[in-house]
Amino acid sequence: MPTLLLVGTGLIGGSFALAAKANGLFDRVVGADENPEALQEALQLGVIDAIDEDSNDETFAAACIAVPVGSVADCVRASVTRASVVFDVGSVKGTIVEALNPLPANYVPCHPIAGSERGGPAAARADLFNDCTVVLTPDRETDAEATATVSRFWHTVGAKVSFETAAEHDRRFGLLSHLPHLVAFAFMEVVAEAGSPPGGGAGFRDFTRIAGADADVWADILHANAPHLQAYVASLRASLQDLADAAQTGSGALRERIEAAAQAKRAIDAKADGRDA
Amino acid sequence: MPTLLLVGTGLIGGSFALAAKANGLFDRVVGADENPEALQEALQLGVIDAIDEDSNDETFAAACIAVPVGSVADCVRASVTRASVVFDVGSVKGTIVEALNPLPANYVPCHPIAGSERGGPAAARADLFNDCTVVLTPDRETDAEATATVSRFWHTVGAKVSFETAAEHDRRFGLLSHLPHLVAFAFMEVVAEAGSPPGGGAGFRDFTRIAGADADVWADILHANAPHLQAYVASLRASLQDLADAAQTGSGALRERIEAAAQAKRAIDAKADGRDA
Repeated sequence: MPTLLLVGTGLIGGSFALAAKANGLFDRVVGADENPEALQEALQLGVIDAIDEDSNDETFAAACIAVPVGSVADCVRASVTRASVVFDVGSVKGTIVEALNPLPANYVPCHPIAGSERGGPAAARADLFNDCTVVLTPDRETDAEATATVSRFWHTVGAKVSFETAAEHDRRFGLLSHLPHLVAFAFMEVVAEAGSPPGGGAGFRDFTRIAGADADVWADILHANAPHLQAYVASLRASLQDLADAAQTGSGALRERIEAAAQAKRAIDAKADGRDA
Repeated sequence: MPTLLLVGTGLIGGSFALAAKANGLFDRVVGADENPEALQEALQLGVIDAIDEDSNDETFAAACIAVPVGSVADCVRASVTRASVVFDVGSVKGTIVEALNPLPANYVPCHPIAGSERGGPAAARADLFNDCTVVLTPDRETDAEATATVSRFWHTVGAKVSFETAAEHDRRFGLLSHLPHLVAFAFMEVVAEAGSPPGGGAGFRDFTRIAGADADVWADILHANAPHLQAYVASLRASLQDLADAAQTGSGALRERIEAAAQAKRAIDAKADGRDA
């Protein structure tokens, strides 16, 4: 009876557990979570079937590590002897790889491009990974069979799998995901400071949706990818000042820059439509 | 037979024309547009019934000025003798009010909080204003009956109406709408500069949706509200650097700031749900 060890019962881990059971990958899910309330909730909701007793005699077909990025390396270390394969779902890979150096052969670093500003076991959904992309960043230490097994897990729950080095991954998601979150948080600080009443339209709501994200998860992500973020923030601050100055002048250059930005947005959307649903 | 003069046949103007006819406010819409292709398209799509001949003998029950902010004042001036009431849909009000000073008595400044990154007559929809809020900024020169008439137009097409001074309006929307657009444009400049491949998730798509906006419309808006934007950009640049520094340090202060930002987002959404659908 293949059993999954789920470490971290929030949105991503809980959704993987539900999806994996629904698709016949495991018969049983044993859960662990630092937060005892989340763990009880996960049990009551049927996201997990039992609570991990941390006894060394139970072994698992797989362990899914779905905790904030800063805690992943420790949880991986604690799981590699208890499960045939171990994978995580962290949004930054470089710091995990460095902390574990060398990578355990049966550990496959993963990052599903899925999520929500909602969190916790109650937000878990068996269809969260339908048509999403999962980036895998195995390195030369990683066992090829472990990579194939974890790759099959993700395909079975409806996801597409792509491969990248940890460094490429962190540079890319630093720009496409972590920087937007940092900007959305900074923007909400400016709004809060201004004591502004509500009344924004759909643009405001969409632009700030990610600002409602989980603080534990995102503090870890921003810290783990801080060097890339420093560089991107420097570029963004320069662009912001240039655009504000162009707005003051109101020259044709302003219109051209906006048009170029709009075209970049349309181009990246068109490529994304072809690659990620 | 009450006829509407529609100056500017894009998304907002075209949608008002469709909604107003569908709800029996006017029997006929006569259109004008600087762009002859858009004008022909509006005629073919039935957004307008005829093209304005600009002869001084036709008079109108109302004129809707739906052109970029920088052209509104001239179009209002040209329309106040041809229509019983005139209103615009510009996203910035202060520069229009200043340019017209004093306001013609039969002109009512309006800003419907509606829009889309799609533009042109083909994007026009009769239901665009359902449950949206329209901010009216009449001043002491404005005829009360004109204000009541224009207010009734908006109610009839499904919108809620609220009142604000032009200065309050520009300060508030500078923060809630114009700053997010400027940031989204600047962010896309950084993405384009990095030559980054696509692959962002739903967060990226929502955060950058407004970057696909119309360049003519937005160059005018950013220029018209440039003084507020300069101040907001200064605050945002400071917040960005502070957060990037906190990310580097990785202290508890980072988590607290993210949590405060997330709470500000949730609070403003909760208030907005109560006020704007």
